[in-house]
Amino acid sequence: MSDTFTPKTLGILGGGQLAQMLALAAIPLGVRVVALEPDPQAGARLCAKHLQAPYTDPAGLARLAECDAVTLEFENVPVEALEYLQGRVPVRPGAGLLAHSKHRAREKEGLRAAGVGTADWVTIEVESDLTGALERVSGAGILKTSELGYDGKGQRRVSSEAELTAAWDDLGRVPCVLEGLVPFVREVSLGVARTSGGALAFGPLVENVHRDGILRTSVYLGADQQAAAQAREMARRVAEAWGLEGLMTLEFFELASGELLVNEVAPRVHNSGHLTQDGGGLSQFGAQVRAVLGLPLADWTPLHPTAMVNWVGAEDEAAQPDWAAIDALPGTHIHLYHKAWRSGRKLGHVNLTAPDAETLRERLAQLERLIP
Amino acid sequence: MSDTFTPKTLGILGGGQLAQMLALAAIPLGVRVVALEPDPQAGARLCAKHLQAPYTDPAGLARLAECDAVTLEFENVPVEALEYLQGRVPVRPGAGLLAHSKHRAREKEGLRAAGVGTADWVTIEVESDLTGALERVSGAGILKTSELGYDGKGQRRVSSEAELTAAWDDLGRVPCVLEGLVPFVREVSLGVARTSGGALAFGPLVENVHRDGILRTSVYLGADQQAAAQAREMARRVAEAWGLEGLMTLEFFELASGELLVNEVAPRVHNSGHLTQDGGGLSQFGAQVRAVLGLPLADWTPLHPTAMVNWVGAEDEAAQPDWAAIDALPGTHIHLYHKAWRSGRKLGHVNLTAPDAETLRERLAQLERLIP
Repeated sequence: MSDTFTPKTLGILGGGQLAQMLALAAIPLGVRVVALEPDPQAGARLCAKHLQAPYTDPAGLARLAECDAVTLEFENVPVEALEYLQGRVPVRPGAGLLAHSKHRAREKEGLRAAGVGTADWVTIEVESDLTGALERVSGAGILKTSELGYDGKGQRRVSSEAELTAAWDDLGRVPCVLEGLVPFVREVSLGVARTSGGALAFGPLVENVHRDGILRTSVYLGADQQAAAQAREMARRVAEAWGLEGLMTLEFFELASGELLVNEVAPRVHNSGHLTQDGGGLSQFGAQVRAVLGLPLADWTPLHPTAMVNWVGAEDEAAQPDWAAIDALPGTHIHLYHKAWRSGRKLGHVNLTAPDAETLRERLAQLERLIP
Repeated sequence: MSDTFTPKTLGILGGGQLAQMLALAAIPLGVRVVALEPDPQAGARLCAKHLQAPYTDPAGLARLAECDAVTLEFENVPVEALEYLQGRVPVRPGAGLLAHSKHRAREKEGLRAAGVGTADWVTIEVESDLTGALERVSGAGILKTSELGYDGKGQRRVSSEAELTAAWDDLGRVPCVLEGLVPFVREVSLGVARTSGGALAFGPLVENVHRDGILRTSVYLGADQQAAAQAREMARRVAEAWGLEGLMTLEFFELASGELLVNEVAPRVHNSGHLTQDGGGLSQFGAQVRAVLGLPLADWTPLHPTAMVNWVGAEDEAAQPDWAAIDALPGTHIHLYHKAWRSGRKLGHVNLTAPDAETLRERLAQLERLIP
């Protein structure tokens, strides 16, 4: 092949469903994927070169360092892995951005420094930080571990000093942030991609509904001019202030006034962006591959109303989605992760398209009844 | 995983771009792919278990026989391979259908027997068949080898007895058909899928333009009621008469009267159906996977106007598509096959979506200028 067409190789730290879907999007772009992932049954093994080894494995990291660039599918990348890769291969997003996004207190500080709003918060690191903390967030809040929390794990809701103290004990007295409750009217999210040259592109503004702390549905009904413009401007500020290279996703609370506050930032594609796979536009996965490898970027907005429903393992393994009925519902697109069942585990999702917003709402109500 | 969710495995004879795109569509459906393909650099190796061995390799065939079903990406499957697999694993489409589609004379006989129209033709197998043949197709035609022709190879246009004799000599005096010229106004195609239980589904009616015997563009502007209904009815007849299990694609000539004649039949997904990957509906690849494995079927029609332009290797390797400009054109989706350049070889395609037919035509004209 000629120079214009040398196949590129993308390394990924992690080999779960996000890596799998990144690889599925990379192959049509002429890009091969190498995934470093200890789980022998990780989904990415089906469509990537699977290096089955710990994230800190020297041989595995050396192989990743031979790629054109390295990205990640989770935020808690071991420091040793990052230190090895730095200087050997472009890691996107890089260590500076990850230092923000993997730590709730630093994330909030970094967001405020970028000039975007967040919930009020108090950092809790030593026992004396508890004193007066609740008052500073207006009397009620959520105590969250600063690191390693996801899908509602590592969180406790508190509305009294006694509850706050008990919650901190319960969370192991690790560094936490106490966040004030935000009286939001809805939760929305938006992805932003940026190349190392500074080119920017955005995903759609998507509305999200959670259940038991885990994303249940995401919906894109069409252009939402005002909220989307606000979200894009906030995402741009954070992307530029944090020197984003690659893709990150911002989750927002929308207040009754229409104002957006950033809830949290994921330095990667996000569950709420899965609906872009089937909306007729580009997908968040292609966007991350492009941004990380410095390929031309464009916004990844669906062409028509699109939604997603997550399939999360139920308590009872036999409580499966009604696949035949899902298939019979017009506009459904099934995405399975090839993972063994476990209660509370994300096992797949179903995207849904429709020619107009009203039809989408109707079909979404039907689809939700088919996925326990 | 519970019974409802045992991951299925699909075997494919062949490992080129069609197998690659079948595998990319299979993975989200919870299906793993095993491809038997001698080429060590075949594109399917990136997203399927690649058995690198001849199509008749006993160990490779034994591995395919362990799959839930076997399908193919080309029609000229060696008889030995089919004989080994028959009775050990469902092969879809099966030997009966392949016997029709791999041989032009039997194909035409089978089409007529199914009650659908074709061009006039004369079978040329021995020298005496040449006598009077040209008159029987109204004085001009195309001599085509009965087997192994594709992309315009193995064909000669003739309009005199002397040309016909010379052409048959030139083609090695192998069995041929002499087809009458059809005064068509356009070429269209349509896919049909059928499960072993008899469930049917259809793809969109797509309009095709060839260049040097190779597909250049396919366009779907929206529902084309009359022609599509006629094509579906013809496809249904052939699918039922030939006992289709799996997916096949019919290419048609459309006459000025609106009547369709079947030109040829491919027992698989087809280049003209690639545009279904990005139209917001289901794709032909997902449809073939579903039909072959007996999963629920649905029509695979784009939600909005969609087109495709093939990238075929030019004489000069340096004459590459203008990738940056293609990326900058709204609605483009790049699909590359990870194949080494060779003049005349299909190396990739670009799908194009647009909100309406007029915008699609404008963008398609731009896109065509970017792909030599």
